Order: sequence, then structure tokens, then C-alpha cells
Amino acid sequence: MTVVQNGTTNGSASSAPTKPAGLDASKLKITLSQNLKPIPPPETLIFGQTTTDHMVFVEYDPVNGWSAPEIKPYGPLNLDPMSSCFQYCPNVFEGMKAYIGPDGKPRLFRPEMNMARMKRSADRVSLPVFDTEELLKIIKRFIEVEARWIPKAKGHSLYIRPTIIGTRASLGVGPSNHAILYVVVSPAGPYFKTGSRAVSLLAVTEHVRAWPGGTGGYKLSLNYAPTFMPQQAAAQKGYDQVLWILGEDKHVTEVGAMNFFVVVKRDDGDLDVLTPPLDGTILPGLTRDSVLKLTAAHPSRTSLPNLPNSLKLYPHEQLLTMSQIIEWSKQGRLLEAFGVGTAVVVVGVGKIGFEGQDIILPQHEGGLGPVSRALYERIVDIQEGKVEWEHWSVPCDEQ
Amino acid sequence: MTVVQNGTTNGSASSAPTKPAGLDASKLKITLSQNLKPIPPPETLIFGQTTTDHMVFVEYDPVNGWSAPEIKPYGPLNLDPMSSCFQYCPNVFEGMKAYIGPDGKPRLFRPEMNMARMKRSADRVSLPVFDTEELLKIIKRFIEVEARWIPKAKGHSLYIRPTIIGTRASLGVGPSNHAILYVVVSPAGPYFKTGSRAVSLLAVTEHVRAWPGGTGGYKLSLNYAPTFMPQQAAAQKGYDQVLWILGEDKHVTEVGAMNFFVVVKRDDGDLDVLTPPLDGTILPGLTRDSVLKLTAAHPSRTSLPNLPNSLKLYPHEQLLTMSQIIEWSKQGRLLEAFGVGTAVVVVGVGKIGFEGQDIILPQHEGGLGPVSRALYERIVDIQEGKVEWEHWSVPCDEQ
Repeated sequence: MTVVQNGTTNGSASSAPTKPAGLDASKLKITLSQNLKPIPPPETLIFGQTTTDHMVFVEYDPVNGWSAPEIKPYGPLNLDPMSSCFQYCPNVFEGMKAYIGPDGKPRLFRPEMNMARMKRSADRVSLPVFDTEELLKIIKRFIEVEARWIPKAKGHSLYIRPTIIGTRASLGVGPSNHAILYVVVSPAGPYFKTGSRAVSLLAVTEHVRAWPGGTGGYKLSLNYAPTFMPQQAAAQKGYDQVLWILGEDKHVTEVGAMNFFVVVKRDDGDLDVLTPPLDGTILPGLTRDSVLKLTAAHPSRTSLPNLPNSLKLYPHEQLLTMSQIIEWSKQGRLLEAFGVGTAVVVVGVGKIGFEGQDIILPQHEGGLGPVSRALYERIVDIQEGKVEWEHWSVPCDEQ
Repeated sequence: MTVVQNGTTNGSASSAPTKPAGLDASKLKITLSQNLKPIPPPETLIFGQTTTDHMVFVEYDPVNGWSAPEIKPYGPLNLDPMSSCFQYCPNVFEGMKAYIGPDGKPRLFRPEMNMARMKRSADRVSLPVFDTEELLKIIKRFIEVEARWIPKAKGHSLYIRPTIIGTRASLGVGPSNHAILYVVVSPAGPYFKTGSRAVSLLAVTEHVRAWPGGTGGYKLSLNYAPTFMPQQAAAQKGYDQVLWILGEDKHVTEVGAMNFFVVVKRDDGDLDVLTPPLDGTILPGLTRDSVLKLTAAHPSRTSLPNLPNSLKLYPHEQLLTMSQIIEWSKQGRLLEAFGVGTAVVVVGVGKIGFEGQDIILPQHEGGLGPVSRALYERIVDIQEGKVEWEHWSVPCDEQ
């Protein structure tokens, strides 16, 4: 193994320097599995536990750059125990989903946003640069190869997990100039096994998910392990998820691993749809962005399902403090709260525990109020290619 | 593979529940390599880049608990791409060192502190529990097996890296109930290749290493990758290391991956030796603790090398703001600043860049002032078994 540090090789200096190769989808090699697995019934799926037949695999080293991408049989990674991914965690991932459209073709939802975010994340932990358009081409081809794994039931999809891990095998603290980029997929039903019901949240102030100047605005693997223990503690108190609170003003950042929204009735009878701003402590979620854009479009550019055209929605990105939320609740103006993310799409909130009191939200059949249900229905319809909107749903055979 | 979630197996429910096995050093199996590697000359060592012949390996699963520990030939780990260590980073490690004592026997430095910290770290990211005394027995035996790798030159040692990684193969965000505990070692010379000179620091406020309610007080692998990019930016500006600043009062937390100390002259001519308190944003370092204890012992219980007994040292754990440091510097009272850690032991600071100005410290031969040099000499003498102090240096054959 050639060991490289600070951009200079410690090996032979006789070879002429060449520019490391970029990620190149045209070099893709496909090796199909000779033993395809049986597809499990959709109702037995638990999120993220089913592996498929193949994976995407590409390696980076500072001399050769990115290797020829491979689609090959799903299998383990072989890594030196000193690898940076274990020791210092320069690891990033994305969450995407593939759906079967009415034309029978696999499609993705706003995939260029995942690619751009993945590049930002990789830059933040000093991973090697890569061409996002090339990665998207490889993922589209991969989804076509694994298309038989896309469940067709409504609310089901093939979850896609592009991942880059640092593989520099050295204990010196510093950027990883070796990496592996891989993509695995897993067929998925609804994220919460509880089915359609509102979740309960426990507002947590003693543990903090993200901080100004930290990494909460990037999709880094390292943002997640610190949430396990507070999440377990919330579950022991009978709450489903953690509502992350920050600062002396006790403002909300995220819920579990989701972005957070509230629907507040205005004096004029219309509705404010509010979510915290992207101040560096909030993940810039695709579903978050989609919710903001769709609420802004109702009713002037589209009618969201079962919402009257006489009702106006006003999306705002603004700080949401717990005292505001309590005040709106007392005034009867807090109509809905919900979490959004790629895995869950939209999930309703039934109550929020805060400083020993529970804030109770209006209850709705299936856990979703009129606005969150309309957003869920419309987003899933766009994702599944049933409603066309701004080319958000992209067929995999479109290059 | 048996997939387990929330403590219940999805496999057969017919087998009677048994308590998972604890970590047990008495089950240790040793398989020696048939091809021992050549030992490189000490002067060629770069920190953390040399692997040895063997490693410790133990696996945990929720049904069987910890497997029989193995010392076996050094080799790669084989891991499912969905493993938690890549996706969510519940990975912890320790930094320890082995030395050859005057009696020719390998010895460790305050190893029970590393074990206790590792357990705290593992708990913070919900890794399986383990018996720290058993792990220490395994490490001692491992060091005896690898004893030929311990360099004998002063300031050299065999760096020890115990590591636990989460290996649950599922994309659902949650604790890893599968894990691998492994230990690798690497012979090491002085940490900084520049040799003995003071380092320069750039005080950084726009990126934050740790925060109240975060994980900066634990030795988690995930604390390190976010520091790569700020460290690179500091290097581009000509500074060796980052000085991490937090809060509106701009107080110091750590330097690079080290604890931070300053020596300030008192009105009575004695010296304050100051370091930030363990408020959750500071790693509770072994070297930090050793510095506090040794300064408190001078001159009443021991005389530190080349420091007069008429000089009293007053250790304090207190917040250190940049404005205080600037003020002390202007008054001519800021005599020394230094970083401490297992890898570096003690390294002097020559200047601190802050808001476009450089705070210049008094310059000393070899980069260390009288107090930091005395601490470096004494700690290394204790580590190498040349000076006995409170049983801090523990022979590996002592069980």
C-alpha cells in the first residue's frame, strides 16, 4: 500500500506525476449476481434491514484517483483496522428513494439535490472531490439493474443509500486521502412500524444535536450516533422521538432525524406553515424544501389535495421557540405539527413533552391533519410519477 | 445473519434466553503470525503509519455476547456496507502507550484511566457494555506478545489504539447491538515531525469543536473528522494547529486534539498553571490530569526537574478567555502556553493568532519553557519507569 501524507508520496518519486482520475460513469463495469435473492413480501419489510443483489463500488486513492465504477454482487467491505472511517469518521451518506412510475419505469425524486448535498458534506470532512453528475448517472443505471426490488404498493419504495467513507489507513489525525464510494439499496415500506398514527415528542435541552459552527447542516454519518442515547431515554419515558432544542431561547432545531414544521392559524383565518431557518444547525432536507415550495404554490399554482382554494398557506423559515409553540397551543392556533424527511415523507405529531408538561395537538384520523396530509399525498403522488410537478420526478432512463 | 432490533430476535423464538457472555480475558486465544515483519529503524517512524504483526479481536452480538478474545495476525476487517460504523459512527477509541522499563519489561501509563474513559465513551454512543478490567488484562497480554515492537529510544513508545465499532447491519437509525472490539499498536517517535520546537496556533471561532450538551467530553471517533477542514485552513494560513474557541466570551476549549494550559506569573512571583475545566466540552485527558497532579505536588511532595523548590505552582481549572490571555501577554505575565496529550505528551506554543494579531509567547530552546519542560521530563521519566510516582507506570506482567 502506498502511504501518502500532506500530498507527497513516501514511495518511489521516480514516476511522473499524473492527475488523479475523476469519477467517470462511462467506465462502469457491471457484474451480475449468479444467485438472485427472493423478494420478500412488502408487508414483512422493516426499514433498512433487507439487502438486495448488487451494490455500486468505487475506490479513490491519491495516485490513481477514482477507480472504474462497478456494479457487482452485494458483499462485505474489507478494510484495514486503522482506516479513518473507524478512527475519525469522515463518512457521509444520502437518503434517496426509487419508485415505479405509471409507465412501469423506475424514477427518482429531485436526485440532483441529493448529489449537491453529498458534495457539500464530503467537502466538510475533506473527502476526495467527485463529479455529482457522474454519480447520478451511475445511480440511475444501478436502479435499473435492481428495478425488480422496487415495491409497487403505495407508500413503498426502494430506499437508496449512497455512502462515502474515508479509508486512509493511518492513526495520524488528518484528512483521508483514500476513500470508498458505495451505494446500497433496500426495499422499504412505511418508516414507522406503528403504521399511520401521530408520534409523540420529548423536547430535550440537556443533549444538543447541533450547534452554530458545528456540522448539523451537513449530512454526515457522525451526526447520528450521539442521538442514540437521548432517543433511548425519550423512549423509556414513553415518547417516540426527540425534539431537539437549542439555546437560552429554547428554540426547536429538528425532530429525531427529521425537519420540523408547525401549522399556525393566522388572525385572517389563513395558515402559517413554519419551519426553522437553515442557520447551520438544520439539515437542508429535500422534503423540507418540497414542503416549502408546495405550500407557497397553493392555491395560486396548484391545489393541494382536499384543501380549499379559499385557504391560503404562508410558508416561513423562522426561529420557533418552545414558548411560542406553547402560546399558540393555548390560543388554539397550533393546528398541526409534523416531521418531514426522505425516509418518513411526512409524519404527524400528537403531543410534545416539555418541562414536565405535554402540549397536546389536535388529533386526526391516521395522525395527519389537513395540511400535513395534503402535503404527504401530493409529495407521494409526485414521487410516484402520478402528478407532474417541476420535473421533480426523474425517470432513471433519462440521462 | 440474525437480525435483531429492540432487543428481540426476529429469528427462531424457540431457544431459551441465555445471558449474553461478558468480555472474558481467560478465554483469550493466541494465534501467532508465521511471517513476522521487519522492525523499521526508529528514526523512520511516522506517527500511526506502521502496523505490527498482530491485533486483538473480539466480536459482540446480542445473543451470544462477547466472543472469546483473540490475539491473531494483523489483518483487515470484513464488514457489511450497511454497518453502523460507516452509516452512523458509534465508534470509540483510546490512545495509550507502552514503554520498556529499566527492568526490560513492557509497562503502561495509568491504563485504568483509559479503560474507564473508554467505557464512558461507549455508553455515550450506546455500544455494548464490557468489563474494563478484562480488557486491560487482554491489552497487557497483547503488549507482551508485541514487545519486540516497543522502541527503546527516549520519547519513543508503542502507541496502542483500542477501538470499538458498531457493526449492526441495518439502515434504521438506532443503537448498534452488534460490535467489534479490536486493538492495534504502532511504534511511534515524537508526534510532530518538526522535532522539538514550539507550535503556532490559530484561534478559530467560526468552527466549533464541541459545545455544551455535545460529545466533546467523550473520546468518540466522530469528534475528529469535523476538525480536518479547519485544521487545513489554519495550515494554509501558516499555523500548525487550531486553538478552539467557544462562546460569546471567546474562551478556549482545546488545541488541535490536545488539552491546553497556560503558565501565568502571579503578583507574589509564583506561577498559576491554568487549564479549562471539564465542563463537557473538554476531553478529560490523562496527560491533563497528570499535569494538574504533578504541579500540585511541586515542591511539597516532589521537585520537578530544574524547577527551584522556592517556586510554587498553583494548578487551577478555570475558564480562559482570549481577552484574559491577551491581557496577561501585554502585562508580561504569560510565561508559557502548551498542549498536552498522549500522542504528544507536552508541546510548547510559540504564538497564537487571534483576530488578525499574533500573541507572541516567550521563546525557549526546543520550544518548551521551564514549567512545560519540567512536566515533559517528569512524565516521560514516570512513563518509562525511571521515576516511580503513585504507581502510574504499570508493568504488563502485573495482573
